[in-house]
Amino acid sequence: MAGRSSRRRFLEATASLTGILAGCKRSPEEDEGPRRIGRPLRVYGERSEFEKSLRALPTTKILEVGQSYTPLAEVYGTITPSALHYERHHSGVPTIDPATHRLLIHGMVERPLIFTMDDLRRLPSISRVCFIECAGNSHAGYGPRDAPTVQLSHGLVSCSEWTGVRLSLLLSEAGVQSGAKWILAEGADAAKMQRSIPLEKAMEDILVAYGQNGEALRPEQGYPLRLVIPGWEGNANVKWLRRLKLTDQPYMTRDETSKYSDSMPDGNARQFTFVMEAKSVVTFPSGGQKLAGAGFYEITGLAWSGRGRIDRVEVSTDSGGTWQDAGLSEPRLPAALTRFRLPWRWDGREAIVQSRATDETGYVQPSHETLVAVRGANYEYHNNCIRPWKVLADGSVTDVAG
Amino acid sequence: MAGRSSRRRFLEATASLTGILAGCKRSPEEDEGPRRIGRPLRVYGERSEFEKSLRALPTTKILEVGQSYTPLAEVYGTITPSALHYERHHSGVPTIDPATHRLLIHGMVERPLIFTMDDLRRLPSISRVCFIECAGNSHAGYGPRDAPTVQLSHGLVSCSEWTGVRLSLLLSEAGVQSGAKWILAEGADAAKMQRSIPLEKAMEDILVAYGQNGEALRPEQGYPLRLVIPGWEGNANVKWLRRLKLTDQPYMTRDETSKYSDSMPDGNARQFTFVMEAKSVVTFPSGGQKLAGAGFYEITGLAWSGRGRIDRVEVSTDSGGTWQDAGLSEPRLPAALTRFRLPWRWDGREAIVQSRATDETGYVQPSHETLVAVRGANYEYHNNCIRPWKVLADGSVTDVAG
Repeated sequence: MAGRSSRRRFLEATASLTGILAGCKRSPEEDEGPRRIGRPLRVYGERSEFEKSLRALPTTKILEVGQSYTPLAEVYGTITPSALHYERHHSGVPTIDPATHRLLIHGMVERPLIFTMDDLRRLPSISRVCFIECAGNSHAGYGPRDAPTVQLSHGLVSCSEWTGVRLSLLLSEAGVQSGAKWILAEGADAAKMQRSIPLEKAMEDILVAYGQNGEALRPEQGYPLRLVIPGWEGNANVKWLRRLKLTDQPYMTRDETSKYSDSMPDGNARQFTFVMEAKSVVTFPSGGQKLAGAGFYEITGLAWSGRGRIDRVEVSTDSGGTWQDAGLSEPRLPAALTRFRLPWRWDGREAIVQSRATDETGYVQPSHETLVAVRGANYEYHNNCIRPWKVLADGSVTDVAG
Repeated sequence: MAGRSSRRRFLEATASLTGILAGCKRSPEEDEGPRRIGRPLRVYGERSEFEKSLRALPTTKILEVGQSYTPLAEVYGTITPSALHYERHHSGVPTIDPATHRLLIHGMVERPLIFTMDDLRRLPSISRVCFIECAGNSHAGYGPRDAPTVQLSHGLVSCSEWTGVRLSLLLSEAGVQSGAKWILAEGADAAKMQRSIPLEKAMEDILVAYGQNGEALRPEQGYPLRLVIPGWEGNANVKWLRRLKLTDQPYMTRDETSKYSDSMPDGNARQFTFVMEAKSVVTFPSGGQKLAGAGFYEITGLAWSGRGRIDRVEVSTDSGGTWQDAGLSEPRLPAALTRFRLPWRWDGREAIVQSRATDETGYVQPSHETLVAVRGANYEYHNNCIRPWKVLADGSVTDVAG
């Protein structure tokens, strides 16, 4: 089916809808009589009282340290609502008054600089849609899987339109000294999150962001200022950004030695592993959902790659026996979530549904077996393997035992 | 300057920043001591307590009938935060339980159909970023202008990522009878908003939308279901959609005769005027703002066209004497807001700042004089003329008397 256009498949699917809509044919009610006037205009909107989607919290008791998960099965399109963007904090969300917040650039620079938020907002800005994914997303997938829903298995990825200033612009103002090769980025949270970032990437596309989906950053996303590093692991996108120090080598902070280094089977650790490789997951049907019965459905999900655009997503409904190309939402942006969709006629029998992404570099998302064979089961981060879901004959969807 | 790349201009602007940042050089404070743990994870986020942007309400007392305006000078990028999407209601915002809401398709069809929300969400879906603009946006601009800020003059346009089902798919299920040429769309609000829409456009790109920026539609945007008609005037994008009736001619409803027809100088009225023509406006500097003093600034604003992509935005800072090409945000999507940006060194003297958009059809946004010459001063809708702002020597920005 690889060669067919998604429009063609769309029309084919159409032909099959009449069956499932049979139950919808009732006599039309053209007018149900007078109606009541609704509620007035308001200065700041809220979602409907009938909408209940929430981030999932961890089961730990200390909620200042941990993560909350985006309900991937309940969001639409590719932009994650800011209120449902995943969280990951090491010491809670600081309350920062933007009027007093400062960004310091120092170390191996000609002119140390301190910027106010007003200074930054006055500078040339850019906007860019990209995902941020926690390096530990799908963590539970390496060993026996204990994440029964796509929210818990993959919900540490979200996608926003970020607005801010190019870091390269700020660095050129400060004047980078020769020999400088790394930047230490530090957050204003109590944990003083610190990561070392190669200067080369900073000159490429790192953003010092103050805007998210049209508004200021949300507090849990780093208000009022954060790094956005397209395609790189979430923890490097330092939130509540207060300091950038130019150095000639990585700082080897606690956050990049005791954490965020990756243990290999031979006992060595990989460092640094910044890029989030191509990944995808089916969000419908996914664990915890229930299909209403045999018939037409649209399989849908999300795909992304830290190395660029998603070029292809294949979907299998027969345990990986055969694969079909899914339709991809446009525009496909580099390092952004891409929505895939495939019409599916479920015959009512047990089925294993899964997706496999290929990015513009040609990299193909690996199977669980392939990944474990290379990295071993102790590997904690960067699990981008294929995730199958099992549709049972009664329509309920479950995880497939690892 | 038309031939230069925006990257080139960006670098040139960079060279001029050192001056304005002189005030920022203070001794670096590497560590300000211990910090307090922040607040915990939460299931649904809210903006920072320091953020105060609001929609502007009309000065009328009956807030169920009227409009609220998006604060265009305070939003970033191209996606409008759903909480700040403009509103326009004829009888308030109805509270609709999606479990009981139905969409009826009837009239000149083979099979009248009623869809539940679950039916609709099960069908093949698409997502599309596009603007919705009230036909009356910039209304005040035809005669003497009485809108001192860009929020009040242009704030009846917003842009979202909409998700839903193609109307053409639903129609093919119902089976359109030969001879059907129009569709009456009706809302479930008390006013029973009704608009006639050509079938031809429905077969092209109209969306029956249930998603907005990743979540369900906001109540004031039509929850749980609305039409999204890319590039067409807002009132045709019927909210709280309950009924689509196929007919052989337009219904000539109150909403398209007593309103939303356009009075021409000769006493005739234009009907129908669905498409929103190319338009742009500078949001910084704009009325009510104040520049801190001479020096570097980034002029920015928004451009859009109901006929496709924005190809060019020119900016003048000298009363229209000369024009420079602004940089355009990518991706430029058809019928979506496009952000433009131009570095500007203000010399501290009075300046008239304005923008002029050209869309991919070659259509150029007209001046106020040109528009009034064609349409007369009684024309109420579809004001897409160029909007100048005056920067006074003290840095304050005001409207330019019409």
